[in-house]
Amino acid sequence: MELTDAQIAEFHQQGYLFLPGQFTREEIEPLRREADSIFAIDREEVWRETSGVARTAFAAHTYSEPFRRLGAHPRMVKPVMQILDGQVYMHQYKINAKAAFDGDVWQWHQDYGVWQRDDGMPEPRAMNIAVFLDEVTAANGPLLFIPKSHQRGVFEAGHDLSTTSYPLWTLDRETVTRLADEGGIEAPTGPPGSMIMFHGNLVHASPPNISPWHRTIVYLSLCEVNNHIRRFKRPEWIAHRDFTAIEPLADDCLLSLPKPETVSSWA
Amino acid sequence: MELTDAQIAEFHQQGYLFLPGQFTREEIEPLRREADSIFAIDREEVWRETSGVARTAFAAHTYSEPFRRLGAHPRMVKPVMQILDGQVYMHQYKINAKAAFDGDVWQWHQDYGVWQRDDGMPEPRAMNIAVFLDEVTAANGPLLFIPKSHQRGVFEAGHDLSTTSYPLWTLDRETVTRLADEGGIEAPTGPPGSMIMFHGNLVHASPPNISPWHRTIVYLSLCEVNNHIRRFKRPEWIAHRDFTAIEPLADDCLLSLPKPETVSSWA
Repeated sequence: MELTDAQIAEFHQQGYLFLPGQFTREEIEPLRREADSIFAIDREEVWRETSGVARTAFAAHTYSEPFRRLGAHPRMVKPVMQILDGQVYMHQYKINAKAAFDGDVWQWHQDYGVWQRDDGMPEPRAMNIAVFLDEVTAANGPLLFIPKSHQRGVFEAGHDLSTTSYPLWTLDRETVTRLADEGGIEAPTGPPGSMIMFHGNLVHASPPNISPWHRTIVYLSLCEVNNHIRRFKRPEWIAHRDFTAIEPLADDCLLSLPKPETVSSWA
Repeated sequence: MELTDAQIAEFHQQGYLFLPGQFTREEIEPLRREADSIFAIDREEVWRETSGVARTAFAAHTYSEPFRRLGAHPRMVKPVMQILDGQVYMHQYKINAKAAFDGDVWQWHQDYGVWQRDDGMPEPRAMNIAVFLDEVTAANGPLLFIPKSHQRGVFEAGHDLSTTSYPLWTLDRETVTRLADEGGIEAPTGPPGSMIMFHGNLVHASPPNISPWHRTIVYLSLCEVNNHIRRFKRPEWIAHRDFTAIEPLADDCLLSLPKPETVSSWA
């Protein structure tokens, strides 16, 4: 898979690119099942909402074979190598649950703002690529993007330690209002297997999920290898310290997984 | 304005009817301005979120000329008379603010469940008709409907006194999950002036508004005159006790309002 010139231009202008249905249901199904198994495990990488349901599972590529393969899937990794114009390593790997009824808000923020402040990442030569494991609709807490907001660098932010269980550098209301009045707000929705690439400086958020349906999204944060982080404040399973370039696997790597009966988490 | 047979059939099957752009921007503009004035007033009919911003203004038709006219507008009242097959009176009148950043959740509920339990309304021969004063999008806390959920009568509900500032009879999670698995979830979105009619037993909710844009919707709850309430537990400005049939005004009634300089709330 290669991005076209038009897609690359759209990414640079809007700050994101939405590719509905990039993975088939057959490819997503084993990941969906595996995510449920991971969320049920009591381990430090699995963070929970106040209610106790899983919010985020970090670093699943280090303890799950299906998610290891997804983390090196050519449809995830190659488009990012194309845009960052170089080899990439895995800076962060998250399965964000946004559980039915209980999935909580993510306030407005920029991911690179966090990587810069907390991890000492030199430049925004890093970005996110996300894949939906569930259908995402207006009802179950979709990602909200402010198009073009990536063009202004890193905004000032306050360290929000109280809204949710996850500390986050969040933007003030005046900034969010100004950016949204200029660029609008978009909510990409679509079936399981849909993919979103977005710039590390794109301002985004997501509302709580009050629906009875889960909304699980996997995020790879990929960083150009020479732009690796300099500061090791956060645990290594949140901000990775292995800067080895990812070697993309074969395009059918998710279809050749062992049968469900024999798949299990390594850890 | 008359509903077609196809529209009436859709209403009875789905439990709601969405009519985008039923009012023009010229008609909506004075209502939008007036709503802001009302939300700024400190009076018992204006309820607030924990943060202090307005959540709901009740009974605005009794103290605001623009909202008095909207409450007797033929495009609001006549379709309901057509579906309920009789004259109607105003059971409840709400301007729901869902303010930018602070507008809070409404949990899953049926309105007729409340009217029956709290107000002793004999039958579900009453329904809501709503008009958007702002654009409603996936980002600013849209109404969420479970189609066909109106066909099963009134579900058991628990009296939620803690989630928000407004006490509400809400449905349990098992019921919501079952209904949504059967009927799906729809989020009607559209420009200011769009109108929604929905059955008193339709299960609905709306998520918090984390966007920087307001999302104001006016709701008339109209009841067939012989089906008037029997119990007067709630204040009369929440559950009205004047059962006089509404006489629809002329179709241009919102266009002949006095100029903004001379419009002011009566109270």
